[in-house]
Amino acid sequence: MATAASGASVVTRTDASAHARLRAVPVGDVTLHDGLWQRRVAANREHGIPRLLERMDSRGAVDNFRIGRPATPDLVRRGYWFSDSDVYKWLEAAAWSLAGHPDPGLAEVVSHIVDAVLGAQDADGYLNTNFRAPLRLRDLGWSHELYCAGHLFQAAIALRRATGDERLLDASTRFATFIDDHLRDGNDTDSHPGVEMALVELSRETEDERWRELAATLSGRVDLGEDSRLWGHAVRSLYFACGLTDLAIETGDAARVATIDALWSSLLEERSYVTGAVGGRWIGESFGRPYELPNEAAYAETCGGVAVAMWAWRQLLRTGDAAFADQLEHVLHNAVLAGVSLEGDEWFYANPLAFAALQEHDPWGADRLAEDMAGPFPLRRRPWRDVACCPTNMVRLLASLPGYVYAFDRERDDLWINLFTASTVEHGGWRVTQRTDYPWNGRVEIVVDQAPRGSRALVLRVPGWCRPLAGSGDGADALEPGTYSVLRRTWKPGDSVVLDLQMEPEALVCDPRVVENRGAVALRRGPVVFCFEGADNPDVDLRDVAVDPGSFTVEEQSDLLDGVVVLRGKGATGAGGRGPLYRPVGAGGPPPVPVALAAIPYYAWANRGLHPMTVWAREHVR
Amino acid sequence: MATAASGASVVTRTDASAHARLRAVPVGDVTLHDGLWQRRVAANREHGIPRLLERMDSRGAVDNFRIGRPATPDLVRRGYWFSDSDVYKWLEAAAWSLAGHPDPGLAEVVSHIVDAVLGAQDADGYLNTNFRAPLRLRDLGWSHELYCAGHLFQAAIALRRATGDERLLDASTRFATFIDDHLRDGNDTDSHPGVEMALVELSRETEDERWRELAATLSGRVDLGEDSRLWGHAVRSLYFACGLTDLAIETGDAARVATIDALWSSLLEERSYVTGAVGGRWIGESFGRPYELPNEAAYAETCGGVAVAMWAWRQLLRTGDAAFADQLEHVLHNAVLAGVSLEGDEWFYANPLAFAALQEHDPWGADRLAEDMAGPFPLRRRPWRDVACCPTNMVRLLASLPGYVYAFDRERDDLWINLFTASTVEHGGWRVTQRTDYPWNGRVEIVVDQAPRGSRALVLRVPGWCRPLAGSGDGADALEPGTYSVLRRTWKPGDSVVLDLQMEPEALVCDPRVVENRGAVALRRGPVVFCFEGADNPDVDLRDVAVDPGSFTVEEQSDLLDGVVVLRGKGATGAGGRGPLYRPVGAGGPPPVPVALAAIPYYAWANRGLHPMTVWAREHVR
Repeated sequence: MATAASGASVVTRTDASAHARLRAVPVGDVTLHDGLWQRRVAANREHGIPRLLERMDSRGAVDNFRIGRPATPDLVRRGYWFSDSDVYKWLEAAAWSLAGHPDPGLAEVVSHIVDAVLGAQDADGYLNTNFRAPLRLRDLGWSHELYCAGHLFQAAIALRRATGDERLLDASTRFATFIDDHLRDGNDTDSHPGVEMALVELSRETEDERWRELAATLSGRVDLGEDSRLWGHAVRSLYFACGLTDLAIETGDAARVATIDALWSSLLEERSYVTGAVGGRWIGESFGRPYELPNEAAYAETCGGVAVAMWAWRQLLRTGDAAFADQLEHVLHNAVLAGVSLEGDEWFYANPLAFAALQEHDPWGADRLAEDMAGPFPLRRRPWRDVACCPTNMVRLLASLPGYVYAFDRERDDLWINLFTASTVEHGGWRVTQRTDYPWNGRVEIVVDQAPRGSRALVLRVPGWCRPLAGSGDGADALEPGTYSVLRRTWKPGDSVVLDLQMEPEALVCDPRVVENRGAVALRRGPVVFCFEGADNPDVDLRDVAVDPGSFTVEEQSDLLDGVVVLRGKGATGAGGRGPLYRPVGAGGPPPVPVALAAIPYYAWANRGLHPMTVWAREHVR
Repeated sequence: MATAASGASVVTRTDASAHARLRAVPVGDVTLHDGLWQRRVAANREHGIPRLLERMDSRGAVDNFRIGRPATPDLVRRGYWFSDSDVYKWLEAAAWSLAGHPDPGLAEVVSHIVDAVLGAQDADGYLNTNFRAPLRLRDLGWSHELYCAGHLFQAAIALRRATGDERLLDASTRFATFIDDHLRDGNDTDSHPGVEMALVELSRETEDERWRELAATLSGRVDLGEDSRLWGHAVRSLYFACGLTDLAIETGDAARVATIDALWSSLLEERSYVTGAVGGRWIGESFGRPYELPNEAAYAETCGGVAVAMWAWRQLLRTGDAAFADQLEHVLHNAVLAGVSLEGDEWFYANPLAFAALQEHDPWGADRLAEDMAGPFPLRRRPWRDVACCPTNMVRLLASLPGYVYAFDRERDDLWINLFTASTVEHGGWRVTQRTDYPWNGRVEIVVDQAPRGSRALVLRVPGWCRPLAGSGDGADALEPGTYSVLRRTWKPGDSVVLDLQMEPEALVCDPRVVENRGAVALRRGPVVFCFEGADNPDVDLRDVAVDPGSFTVEEQSDLLDGVVVLRGKGATGAGGRGPLYRPVGAGGPPPVPVALAAIPYYAWANRGLHPMTVWAREHVR
């Protein structure tokens, strides 16, 4: 096995992509320091990745690749027909983790699993443990064969970049050849997109345009309907949008870009929860109709949040537009992070924005019927489910997270800072450190330890959520929220820039077409959306609470929930009790009771047991 | 086949039940005249019953009873394991229909199906087409064997009462004997209740206490939990409550009555939609938690509405309390009637209180995944579904509807009027006609053509929704809403009483713990709940409409939706258009646009294609 330079471990490779504004910084070139993301990434590395492997392995997902060999005569295939993808996603996670944190034990496990995968490849290049001739590539409407292939390719690319091991990449090009030979003609493609972005990345990694052309061919077989908006199954739609964006990064094709722009508008203007989550409808794991964003009944699948992050990242690479970095930051801090426990090894599939109570009692088996549906009812973070899409997506995203914090201008040595978090980047002649307690505090000190010679730019994101502000150091210009600010000069070791982003608690209201949120507000501070959880508001009926939006103050609590900020303020709640559900208008009920309220970051809810919770609360009109 | 007197065709027989206040009037003794219920019952008889049989038959449900006979060697069983219940429910519907409308063709079809059922009974009395020894009564946690048995018994009782055919009743007692012999000891019962009420009725019909005791035994095996509230699967819970109520009617047992009272409070104070529908949570077909009453995502199964009607009816027979008649009227006019098309032969399973739009486009198959789930997405009234519970429940309830309009005091010849609808009752020495256009007009003239000799009472329900009013004729006393008013005198042919119930449009508000309804109102007039449907409000965005509750006036439209009242009033709607979903509080949007609004009865929605609809709309605060 060859050992690659860590400099190659980019999550997405756009250095030769003619229509990319940015290129990624290798995961291995970024070191996180103590703070929100360092803790979450460490929990993922220390608990999430190893425990997910144990559970996946115990359910047969790895053994499936060993069926039919002399040493394992008794194995029978277990799990869903798409479970190969779980193994590939786990391999991808392990690869990104190894890029920044060498671990000989993990590397050996990875190598054994790669052996198993290679052993399952058919002589003609086809590779899937669930399908044997003549059933291969026969029913792509449900088989997920290309979806699994896409995850194979992504794992192979990550392993080569992070460890230099090229064996899975060779297997990938053989399988891609098989797919191309069998599907180039006709009109068939996988009903679950994903292979498109993987093929584009395979094309970049192997410098072979054949795979990009195959991606364009398969992508072109999807009927987008008459208007360009997001539709149907949320993750499928977003993975498809990612593939379109990757193609646009390569080709610059104007029609494709127009479609992507329209889809993105649809995401932000019709489809996103205030947490950045998507896909409100559990039935069909679907977007539903525009403005269909129920709170308690939300599906808001963790995979959907991950997919938004993947798409925002590709849009950012394509354009360098700060709006995409805003959405990347937003979805990571809220929708994605809520999907995993603070320990890092239990995962939500559904991410509702309100939770009132479990059913107290059910003698008729309704909860039993619902148990394996992984919808919003019954709700809990789970250590395992045989449809393991969300946990595997989470571990690979968190393992690669350092790779999203910075970027480089594709054509020059300018260093872009996308996300604020305590960290050091060492790449392309730069060595730069962010000193900050972000997202709990808006002060970010950026210290240049080393810079390329000559005039170079530090390109700082100014979040869209903040107010116009002045840069310190010699950057006396006012900085425009929602843009990247370019500080171009000859940088010397010891130079620093301070961003002082004002983080006041802010109350948001919602488009009234989202019916559940009419008359209600949600609290946000900086990039973090807050919620009220019963653990902090034990005597308040959160189904019937009203808040005084201007009353909230900030309190740092380093001992709570692995370190968070709490917002404390005032509100009122109904009197509760039992009585008729409906009464004539004007027949007033009892007066509301004043209460003190405390809000925690939404992502941290359900880490102290399962308590009632709400993101949205009525605005208290006194 | 013997022919019974129509006088025996009571839907529930409580004439010998010591703890019943009322007894039923035979279905065959009531004639409906032109009006809402006559039209719906006629559509059910002319379209619903015959077409449902065709569809059920074509799916094998009747043939399942003929498997294994010499004449039908090629038959294999089709459909769900509980499909026998569909045949039984259809037989019950046919029986009630024959009670009031003799039809030799239908009677012959019924007789052939009874032949088929009888032929499938095992020698030892067991009867179910899905289970053969040794699998009989082995897994009542899912098998529905007792549930199917209960529907067999109900069909058998209805057939005997309506047609005099006792063959199915004989089969029922043989099967009941088998069940009693096998389940009397142990702790097992069906996870889907229903057999309990059927056994009590079998006990009444056969005058054999053994079946009532078996019902009590089975009922006692259900763990009700610590507090007496409705829980879990809605229909199961309500069927169980019906059985408990039937037992209480026989025994008067105080503990059972206390439980029933608590469950009823739970129904009205925590669990009911404003339409009377129940079971908001599709996952598990469940009540969910208290106050979990989503509108667009409502399950609100048609079977649940039927079950509420069944329970309210039993409560009314038990107590003679007008509150139960109010709920019976309410759920029939709104939740139940919405479940069937005006044509009578397509049925909703889910009955949402709002509908915005179908998904425009879905290239990923989400709708395909959801198609057979019969949840609120995708929504349509269906002519058939293999889980045929709702259509069969509807046809049997509508066929028996004349039997709920009147009742008799169990111990004297007093005639009670439960429901207002144009009709004539001829029973027990009375012949009385209601002349009315109710529910479109609150004037009800009750004409006595014939009465038993001596002092007798006409007992008139005064609906809880109306204001105190004076009776005319010589009943000069003020009548108290929510009670039965007793007019006791010596009645002479030609005597009449006029009830003039004021029907003003009324706006209702909801307990704020039902989060979707905060700040919103629903319109009701008399017993009818209204909704806004896109067909009548084509330029209004119903997701974002506000209404002026005091502005609504009444317009009768005999040419619309088979004759309805329309409420016309004023409101306002948001400007619509695309923009950010979330904005800081205080950053105002465009001003609302005034609109004219029209509301139709909720039950009649979705009969002109599928348009947006909402029952609840924000109250317009000017």
